Amino acid sequence: MGGNQGSEQSDRFAEDPAFAVHEGGKLSVTPTRSITSIADLALTYTPGVARVSSAIAAEPELARRFTWAPRVVAVVSDGSAVLGLGNIGPAASLPVMEGKACLFAEFAGLSAVPIVLSTNDVDEIVAAVVAIAPSFGGINLEDISAPRCFEIEAQLRDRLDIPVMHDDQHGTAIVVLAALRNAAKVVGRELGDLRVVVSGAGAAGVACTKILLGAGVGDIAVADSQGVLHAGRRDLTATKQWLVENTNPSGFAGTMVAALAGADVYLGLSGGSVPEAAVASMAPDCIIFSLANPTPEVDPEMAAKYAAVVATGRSDLPNQINNVLAFPGVFRGAIDAGARSITEEMKLRAADAIAGVVGEDLRADYVVPSPLDRRVAAAVAEAVGACAREQGVTR
Amino acid sequence: MGGNQGSEQSDRFAEDPAFAVHEGGKLSVTPTRSITSIADLALTYTPGVARVSSAIAAEPELARRFTWAPRVVAVVSDGSAVLGLGNIGPAASLPVMEGKACLFAEFAGLSAVPIVLSTNDVDEIVAAVVAIAPSFGGINLEDISAPRCFEIEAQLRDRLDIPVMHDDQHGTAIVVLAALRNAAKVVGRELGDLRVVVSGAGAAGVACTKILLGAGVGDIAVADSQGVLHAGRRDLTATKQWLVENTNPSGFAGTMVAALAGADVYLGLSGGSVPEAAVASMAPDCIIFSLANPTPEVDPEMAAKYAAVVATGRSDLPNQINNVLAFPGVFRGAIDAGARSITEEMKLRAADAIAGVVGEDLRADYVVPSPLDRRVAAAVAEAVGACAREQGVTR
Repeated sequence: MGGNQGSEQSDRFAEDPAFAVHEGGKLSVTPTRSITSIADLALTYTPGVARVSSAIAAEPELARRFTWAPRVVAVVSDGSAVLGLGNIGPAASLPVMEGKACLFAEFAGLSAVPIVLSTNDVDEIVAAVVAIAPSFGGINLEDISAPRCFEIEAQLRDRLDIPVMHDDQHGTAIVVLAALRNAAKVVGRELGDLRVVVSGAGAAGVACTKILLGAGVGDIAVADSQGVLHAGRRDLTATKQWLVENTNPSGFAGTMVAALAGADVYLGLSGGSVPEAAVASMAPDCIIFSLANPTPEVDPEMAAKYAAVVATGRSDLPNQINNVLAFPGVFRGAIDAGARSITEEMKLRAADAIAGVVGEDLRADYVVPSPLDRRVAAAVAEAVGACAREQGVTR
Repeated sequence: MGGNQGSEQSDRFAEDPAFAVHEGGKLSVTPTRSITSIADLALTYTPGVARVSSAIAAEPELARRFTWAPRVVAVVSDGSAVLGLGNIGPAASLPVMEGKACLFAEFAGLSAVPIVLSTNDVDEIVAAVVAIAPSFGGINLEDISAPRCFEIEAQLRDRLDIPVMHDDQHGTAIVVLAALRNAAKVVGRELGDLRVVVSGAGAAGVACTKILLGAGVGDIAVADSQGVLHAGRRDLTATKQWLVENTNPSGFAGTMVAALAGADVYLGLSGGSVPEAAVASMAPDCIIFSLANPTPEVDPEMAAKYAAVVATGRSDLPNQINNVLAFPGVFRGAIDAGARSITEEMKLRAADAIAGVVGEDLRADYVVPSPLDRRVAAAVAEAVGACAREQGVTR
């Protein structure tokens, strides 16, 4: 497969180790047992498999025990909002989805299959995922642009009785809430007393705002590229209209920069750059989560001059807000419990679990665990599973 | 996951080793490299993966080198015609699709992902497979009932530029042709001189008839449950109408049993039972391929009284006609060559390759290699790939 092509082009990519890691792809599907005899063949395939299929046909719940589907997550993307690269299409998004599948395997022991789609149409995406859903135990939506991602997730949650989660929304939101819980502790504040400015009203901005509201933060101003969302804004999407109705209690109308004056928390999910004067105008002991990658909206060194706690999305700085702290454990917990959906309460409990792993070691530069901390996924899975059972959403 | 359920129910299934083999499913998706450091994470996932995705976005052909998709086959079924079990639905069909994926891994070194569908609608199935196609390097359709399977395969072949093959049709046809080539040698006959009766006008019957016509067999009568297809038959599907126009040159109108009188070859793909008198009425040195599983249409011991060569689908008898001789090598060869489709010529060459593995060892009870013969997939892949290159259907 492209052997000639490979050798001709190998020099071009030799200097970047990322390409070496991706050579031939990053995943493999392997049988759990090898087939070395006619007897193996007769058990794994015909005629033995017919007895298993017949048993499942008679008693559908046996599929949970005798097929792999309940333990497989589909990582579904249309390639329309990939990292900071935008709408690069399904083929180019595949390395990201393969990477996500690697993380599911590595941190949750779950199989995951990248499913990249040749369509950006909401109805076609929903129809395709509903059609293939019996193959999987969970659907992780990924890198689908707003506002389509909201509608796609809502429809799939409605039509499927397996866990469905758009990770760019809820994975990010869970980890942000975990980090904010611990950051508030560092500065001796309650979540309910904080005034928060969210920069960005896309997938992550909306979900972070919702989870912070759910966790009791009362004063949140959300800004898109046109400034803070308020009742005077026109031509808003349904999602932004919802934000207008549920945030910005003071009715502030102005720019995101202006909103920062006296704010306790800046949550950057937008890219771009925040001027130092605006950062300097924030309240004392403020908290700055600047998550644009690779270049945070607030320069981390500058942020440190004004903020008590600084977090970014970068792996080379402390307090890395990384979704890998959330999604492996969320799906593992939901799947193990046989959850039919991922509820708001399960997300809140996941955030608590992540924050809890930090425990006694809490410091300004350690408000979230390392992405490699193996305790996290187990703690999240336990919390999510317990919540699913308490809420009675298991099968 | 179903731990309690498992232990409560374990006794019920303990006696059949097929269930033990299926406990927890038969497949796993595993990363090709483990992630044990922040540096690993930064290459497998962000930020390193962004450079690979950007490169593919700029140069789409790089996806063949830096993603797994080109080497992954989707094993797609709607569960409507599973083995001999009929329309048992997607969940119950999954063990069969997992088994197929095991065989792809074991015999072709290819990853394969079972995709079972919640719909039986032709248009919905086509739309779903087209939507997910960028995730895969080939589509193996499986256990989809006739006549929908013909339309689904035709539409997908038309709309996708990756190999698409309905294995119940073409995998069976390829192995049947391979076996018939060698059986004809055993009895010293040419394919063009044989009079063949095909019992069954479903997926396998139609495809076997087409490949035998393509290989030069001129006199084939195809029977469905109402008897031999001929110009006087009414209410035929488009596929059966095609068979009327391309088979049965003598215009025989009668039962399958009547058609056997003087026939050289019986090809059973229908189930049911053929009376001994009908078998006795066949030509001397006749050839009987009776492929219903687990009970061949012609009792193999009885067949041996009249036929020079007998083949079945059973693993406990000689001359097992098993699709595993065809599909792993066909997809491997097509994928390695970068073929955009699987052509008729590629199937004929695959059959030649399977027949060729038997070679000098040809005997009446060894007209096809063992399903476990590791030489077969390699020989088929080489033949199919060479054919693709000669035909210029590679990318």
